Amino acid sequence: MKSFLDENFLLKSKQAEQLYHDYAKDRPIYDYHNHLEANDIAIDRSYGDLSEVWLQGDHYKWRIMRAMGHDERFISGSGDPKEKLRGYTEAVSQAVGNPLYHWSHMELKGYFGIEERICPENVDKIWEQANSYLKSLSTIKMLTLINVHTLCTTNDILENLDSHKKVMDAQASVVTVRPSFRPDKVVRINKHGFVDYIHRLVDATQIVIRDFGDLKKAIKERLNFFDDMGCLCADHGLDVFNFVLCDEAEANVAFKRVFQEEILSAGDAAKYQSALLRYLAQEYRSRGWVMQLHIGALRDNNQPMYRRLGPDSGFDAVNDAPVAQPLSQFLNAAMEDGGLPKTILYCLNPKDNYILSTIGGCFWGDGIKGRVQFGPAWWFVDHLEGMEKQLTDLATTGVLGTFVGMLTDSRSFLSFVRHEYFRRILCNFIAEKVVNGELPWDEKWLGDMVKRISFDNARTFFEG
Amino acid sequence: MKSFLDENFLLKSKQAEQLYHDYAKDRPIYDYHNHLEANDIAIDRSYGDLSEVWLQGDHYKWRIMRAMGHDERFISGSGDPKEKLRGYTEAVSQAVGNPLYHWSHMELKGYFGIEERICPENVDKIWEQANSYLKSLSTIKMLTLINVHTLCTTNDILENLDSHKKVMDAQASVVTVRPSFRPDKVVRINKHGFVDYIHRLVDATQIVIRDFGDLKKAIKERLNFFDDMGCLCADHGLDVFNFVLCDEAEANVAFKRVFQEEILSAGDAAKYQSALLRYLAQEYRSRGWVMQLHIGALRDNNQPMYRRLGPDSGFDAVNDAPVAQPLSQFLNAAMEDGGLPKTILYCLNPKDNYILSTIGGCFWGDGIKGRVQFGPAWWFVDHLEGMEKQLTDLATTGVLGTFVGMLTDSRSFLSFVRHEYFRRILCNFIAEKVVNGELPWDEKWLGDMVKRISFDNARTFFEG
Amino acid sequence: MKSFLDENFLLKSKQAEQLYHDYAKDRPIYDYHNHLEANDIAIDRSYGDLSEVWLQGDHYKWRIMRAMGHDERFISGSGDPKEKLRGYTEAVSQAVGNPLYHWSHMELKGYFGIEERICPENVDKIWEQANSYLKSLSTIKMLTLINVHTLCTTNDILENLDSHKKVMDAQASVVTVRPSFRPDKVVRINKHGFVDYIHRLVDATQIVIRDFGDLKKAIKERLNFFDDMGCLCADHGLDVFNFVLCDEAEANVAFKRVFQEEILSAGDAAKYQSALLRYLAQEYRSRGWVMQLHIGALRDNNQPMYRRLGPDSGFDAVNDAPVAQPLSQFLNAAMEDGGLPKTILYCLNPKDNYILSTIGGCFWGDGIKGRVQFGPAWWFVDHLEGMEKQLTDLATTGVLGTFVGMLTDSRSFLSFVRHEYFRRILCNFIAEKVVNGELPWDEKWLGDMVKRISFDNARTFFEG
Repeated sequence: MKSFLDENFLLKSKQAEQLYHDYAKDRPIYDYHNHLEANDIAIDRSYGDLSEVWLQGDHYKWRIMRAMGHDERFISGSGDPKEKLRGYTEAVSQAVGNPLYHWSHMELKGYFGIEERICPENVDKIWEQANSYLKSLSTIKMLTLINVHTLCTTNDILENLDSHKKVMDAQASVVTVRPSFRPDKVVRINKHGFVDYIHRLVDATQIVIRDFGDLKKAIKERLNFFDDMGCLCADHGLDVFNFVLCDEAEANVAFKRVFQEEILSAGDAAKYQSALLRYLAQEYRSRGWVMQLHIGALRDNNQPMYRRLGPDSGFDAVNDAPVAQPLSQFLNAAMEDGGLPKTILYCLNPKDNYILSTIGGCFWGDGIKGRVQFGPAWWFVDHLEGMEKQLTDLATTGVLGTFVGMLTDSRSFLSFVRHEYFRRILCNFIAEKVVNGELPWDEKWLGDMVKRISFDNARTFFEG
Repeated sequence: MKSFLDENFLLKSKQAEQLYHDYAKDRPIYDYHNHLEANDIAIDRSYGDLSEVWLQGDHYKWRIMRAMGHDERFISGSGDPKEKLRGYTEAVSQAVGNPLYHWSHMELKGYFGIEERICPENVDKIWEQANSYLKSLSTIKMLTLINVHTLCTTNDILENLDSHKKVMDAQASVVTVRPSFRPDKVVRINKHGFVDYIHRLVDATQIVIRDFGDLKKAIKERLNFFDDMGCLCADHGLDVFNFVLCDEAEANVAFKRVFQEEILSAGDAAKYQSALLRYLAQEYRSRGWVMQLHIGALRDNNQPMYRRLGPDSGFDAVNDAPVAQPLSQFLNAAMEDGGLPKTILYCLNPKDNYILSTIGGCFWGDGIKGRVQFGPAWWFVDHLEGMEKQLTDLATTGVLGTFVGMLTDSRSFLSFVRHEYFRRILCNFIAEKVVNGELPWDEKWLGDMVKRISFDNARTFFEG
Repeated sequence: MKSFLDENFLLKSKQAEQLYHDYAKDRPIYDYHNHLEANDIAIDRSYGDLSEVWLQGDHYKWRIMRAMGHDERFISGSGDPKEKLRGYTEAVSQAVGNPLYHWSHMELKGYFGIEERICPENVDKIWEQANSYLKSLSTIKMLTLINVHTLCTTNDILENLDSHKKVMDAQASVVTVRPSFRPDKVVRINKHGFVDYIHRLVDATQIVIRDFGDLKKAIKERLNFFDDMGCLCADHGLDVFNFVLCDEAEANVAFKRVFQEEILSAGDAAKYQSALLRYLAQEYRSRGWVMQLHIGALRDNNQPMYRRLGPDSGFDAVNDAPVAQPLSQFLNAAMEDGGLPKTILYCLNPKDNYILSTIGGCFWGDGIKGRVQFGPAWWFVDHLEGMEKQLTDLATTGVLGTFVGMLTDSRSFLSFVRHEYFRRILCNFIAEKVVNGELPWDEKWLGDMVKRISFDNARTFFEG
């Protein structure tokens, strides 16, 4: 029986231990996609208690508390912070096999030195020790403690990025904080508030937008601004991947129609979105940016709770719409338009792993290692089994050694232990093949691969 | 090498053995969904020979005999009973890895003390020993032998439930036998015989049905009757999950149209079914019933054999229609209508595991532990690997400790060994995480979880 | 730690070793589906260097070289052969977990006695030793060396099969080489060149084709010709499985319309294809042929590269179109038309495993063992994990002992080591169940099963 959460956590062989301790553990973290607020770094925010830093705004945790049947007041509401923590420890202690079981223990250990088991019996100890440690912690200290090298936050394209500027200007900053370009609001033409958003785009850019051509000009302004601010990548949330081949004139007709306060037909919306995606892909490519596509969420399923708490509150799920044809057509259209930018594909539904990895693999080339990446396990599949499956599906259909590795995708400054979690799983994944005689044991060769997947591949892919 | 089928069958570690023997083995069985005939219990039926009790009507077994190319006469037909058994032993001995290999050996051992390997060489021994034991067995003895606490049979809503009444009235009965409300025939408006069925509903309730409102009144009569008879749950077979948002007036139009001997358009049928499902969900909720949805079967694929043998004869398969959007819309509609009943979601296609578990998880709450359950592995996925995958997918996306556990879904009184099978797999599943250092070892904590998943969670969920 | 690639490669237990060495290893190879050129055997072709025999035309290998970002000149182009090899060794050494890692090492060892690790450091040694061995090798020697008994190549229905004739006539031939009937070009009515192809069919058969009835006559000529040439099976590439129920008159209308240089509607094309598939199924059945259906490829995704290199160059992927309903309807239509031929179903998307295995299982019977086979892991899933999943999904939903086993599906004469690879995985798969106590250990019983899956089942299925 292995001990829980000791230094060899998840490492089932000597080879796995060697790979992790000698090649993975000390690599810095290149967290190329997350949802942190740059301002929390700019002001070096600190936190009052464990509930604030740990439970507030974390919809992963809220879900398992709801599964226990707890009162929403002690989940997302105004209930007593320590009672919230007690509720969370109850939920964790029943959530055997859920990634939160591991993440939560790793977070308490990694940031607060707490090695107690998370369960209601230990809530007093945890509360006291964490709160006492919290006094000497702040966002920058948390990032430094865990050796973060670069962060790419996710930003609406209208954001002024003042906080990023502030962080970049601070000479003392040991962490590079870069924005990512997230144009979802300008892509989702049928979402409530689209026309207002275009007006805000006009205000931000001082470009009058009468047609699709003007729109592109205004967006280009924002692309240039983000580029100046050190942005290296864009990110799209394509819950359902609608893509149609059409010329820009059709997209223009659709775009202009929306200003007559019309809801577009699904076909017209797809034309607009497809033309815009194609435009953006070329802009990303010409700037050397990485294009990230997140495919397959089904959001806001519980409308009464959505009305009460808004988006990103734990009421999202996995969708099962088809992906292969639109994905293939879009990537090919980009090729035909001038070339494909470096791309990372993420799917929320594990049934799409093979779709993403094999279609992506049709667009490798142009002197770039792994130009199209089958991205790491995301959200509902971001757990031990999900990561092992992503690694297996990537390895069997592609070239593992070119993989850019892990990210947090998180809103929490405590979540960086997920890189450690991934690296342990990666090292064990490779070492298991050695132990089973599926690979020869050459520590330097495999160690070097682990090093690159832990950090260097991502840095080269984004910065190279 | 572990021995086959000894007391530690499927338990790969000391921890698994402890969890199973000390916490799981002796829990009673709460079989909340099966297809047994209550009358077989009411009359305490006994059986003439092993073929009758074991092979008759069991389409799981028939399939593997057909795979061997056997003559249908010795499968579902009038062939000699012992020859049927011989054919089945041949099929089993080639069906390595099929759950029937384990179930069949467990059934012979558990009910007849037979430890011989199932193969044609042993057919004489098996035939004699089983038939000799059968003389002293009957349905009630079989249920008692294996410690069944509660059975929920599956009943058409027009059934008079006389047999259930008889069983409930029998003071000596040690097993509680409850009906479940299965309204498929009133839901499937485009199935041959629908109008006749409505006429039978009129006869049963003495309510004249001219429109959708009348229909609801008549159904309510039956709901009340089932409720009086101790019913705790409903069950729906939604082979393809069609759901549309519409108001009841549209459903009413569709419903009235069908009496002009019309086949409804798919759209109209969906309107009727959606409105009816919404009505039923509220009725279930107000009675505290559990709503079970079985999603994804593709039935009666081989029409020549269907014409010969009818439904449920081994010619059903797995479908691949989309599930996410209609499921999400239906559950949300129930929320908007007044609230969601306790719900269990089953999928036949393992590609839908994540859909069910993550969409279900958007509707947790209201003070109920695991209000929406991702149900246990069903039918074609009800085997060692399928159960491990269901447990993994449930655990990683939800809270394992709230799971209501196993059922048989069976037509056979010998099939209750599947609870033992599940519990062994469950204990091994949890213990494996302990052995791998993924969980701390705290026998009481995990043993208590095992106890609840084996019995108590189901009882609380259905009766609480 | 097991050694890499020794005699017990992939065999994790004594039982696995026994099954492999005593029952599987020495069975001949019945390669019932591949893409070899019969002419290469007829002329007993030999090869100039390792790049020619190993890398030329192998799109599996090209893909991983593209993933590394190599110049296309050194992949499919005119670059220096040894530089191509160097590039390939680089790619392989990063492609940990890709089946090419194992296949490539097995090929170098099995045909050239090379046991060096494939990596750029060893490129000189590999180049020299392989080229030196190549001098004494030829296609027939390669086939003999590895104990091939029968080959079924894949042939357009207009091929004259002269090379097959030549091979069959050669008394000395130790390998039986049979054609397979591949009517894709006559099925895909909306593909560019269809009308020209019909004209070629007219030329080949001297039957004037004015309507669907004439078309059937002409096709029958080719069926008879292939039958005379020893053909035992047909093969269809159904990238998307479109099937509709219609009568032949509708198919006739659609067929005649295409000669007015029209592109048919999707519905009309489906009618034509469905009627033709039904016709062919009956013809296959009456000849005792096996019908193979390959379902789910998404081809030629990267159009710029397609224009440059043509089909089958490494730009194909996995599709996610629905399969269940059309597959069920087609198999049932064949039953209604007169009966189903022996059938093997292959899917490229592992999400379809359950669809194929459970729908296929609805059509078992007629005195044939495993009349409908869930075929072995194909193309993108033809790797260790994919084979284990195929074996698991087949075993849990069917009868493993009836399985017809492996094929290469390859264009390369070196690829026959994949049979060894499969047999090792098969033996380990079964032995693991023994070791875990999931099966009793009876060497003869399981060894006999292994023998049959390795060779005899395929031979009986195709020739019986």
